[in-house]
Amino acid sequence: KIVALIHDKLSDQHMYKLKNKKILITAGPTREHVDPVRFFTNHSSGKMGYAIAEKAAQWGADVTLISGPVSLSAPENVEIVRVDTAEEMRIAVFERYREADVVIKSAAVADYRPSVQYDEKMKKQEGPMKMEFERTIDILKSLGEEKDHQVLVGFAAETQDVEYHAIKKLQSKNADIIVANNIKQEGAGFSGDTNIVTFYHRDGTKKALTLLSKEKVAEELLEEILPLVNREGQGQDVL
Amino acid sequence: KIVALIHDKLSDQHMYKLKNKKILITAGPTREHVDPVRFFTNHSSGKMGYAIAEKAAQWGADVTLISGPVSLSAPENVEIVRVDTAEEMRIAVFERYREADVVIKSAAVADYRPSVQYDEKMKKQEGPMKMEFERTIDILKSLGEEKDHQVLVGFAAETQDVEYHAIKKLQSKNADIIVANNIKQEGAGFSGDTNIVTFYHRDGTKKALTLLSKEKVAEELLEEILPLVNREGQGQDVL
Repeated sequence: KIVALIHDKLSDQHMYKLKNKKILITAGPTREHVDPVRFFTNHSSGKMGYAIAEKAAQWGADVTLISGPVSLSAPENVEIVRVDTAEEMRIAVFERYREADVVIKSAAVADYRPSVQYDEKMKKQEGPMKMEFERTIDILKSLGEEKDHQVLVGFAAETQDVEYHAIKKLQSKNADIIVANNIKQEGAGFSGDTNIVTFYHRDGTKKALTLLSKEKVAEELLEEILPLVNREGQGQDVL
Repeated sequence: KIVALIHDKLSDQHMYKLKNKKILITAGPTREHVDPVRFFTNHSSGKMGYAIAEKAAQWGADVTLISGPVSLSAPENVEIVRVDTAEEMRIAVFERYREADVVIKSAAVADYRPSVQYDEKMKKQEGPMKMEFERTIDILKSLGEEKDHQVLVGFAAETQDVEYHAIKKLQSKNADIIVANNIKQEGAGFSGDTNIVTFYHRDGTKKALTLLSKEKVAEELLEEILPLVNREGQGQDVL
């Protein structure tokens, strides 16, 4: 009973931590189509982004989750916007960027898409084939360039030189935090329910977490974000 | 009560239709990997193949379902073998081909795979990129070449000139039946629960079905297969 009361009390505290904050979260993969049958995609399950969205909503935030195609149901009290391609995701994010206090880009957006998309199913030929790809617009970079008051959080899912890539991404994208993980590490992959991440901040500090559930990682990330949302000149709706 | 009895009676009849027949069914898409994050795939949901497997098992067949990555649970009384790439599917099929009475290839197997698969995540570059692809081995064609007693059923999911492609496939793959559909037609797509198919036979006959549930299409297909399994020189275990 006392434990329950304390738990309620703690939940109550959390409930106000992000009250009135508008948080935009992206999750899942994108699909880049070759023709009506074939497409390019990636292993992102969306679980990390969905866990963050759920937790942020529990903390009282006004959450919009822009989700690529995943087989997860929408978290409670979260506005969900479903998109398919990198370009659809970019448009959905920018439509909501101005008014956002925090943007957390956990989606694994395709870097490349086929230069030509065919309306009819491509018939196969004998022998090898060369396909041309063009770069999609880098959403995190564009957000960094147009940032004014927003706290911008990016992800770096790497297979090697994780710290190098994370710090480079922090700078080149003008992000406030990069959440980095080595997807080759046991328990840190895309489809699992756990993650092993390190937070890299603009001021050069970092915080490495051990293996945790994605729910717990979500909570830790929101704790990292809190002081940034509430710093002077940010988060106009501070309690 | 009488209706229930008749229903039981009918079910009993079905229960022996494919008794002692070994049926091999493939379903779902394959994934062809570029690196640990990115891959090529297609829109196949696996629903058609899973429906056929379920129905064949109800009709008493000894069913093995070789399935690409889908979010469906295994039908009852079906042995399921999960594979990822076209090459894994090819190996799984050929390991079981000799002893099969019927092979139904409803999987949407990739025609092409990237010529190189990277062990580490490929870093993006500025500007467009060309990627080289090589042909995967054509499983249906290989099965047709090595066919002796088996009834071989292929699928043709097309967006145009459906009949032309179906008949061409029937001949070039040495198949006994091609199940063809136009995936651009409303109700005949990959991810829905219905389909609109036409069966093309080696003897030049065809049978066009209207819009039906995938369960019903599965039943109709098995009815088409029955006389072929039981024809002279085939289906050694005829009741």
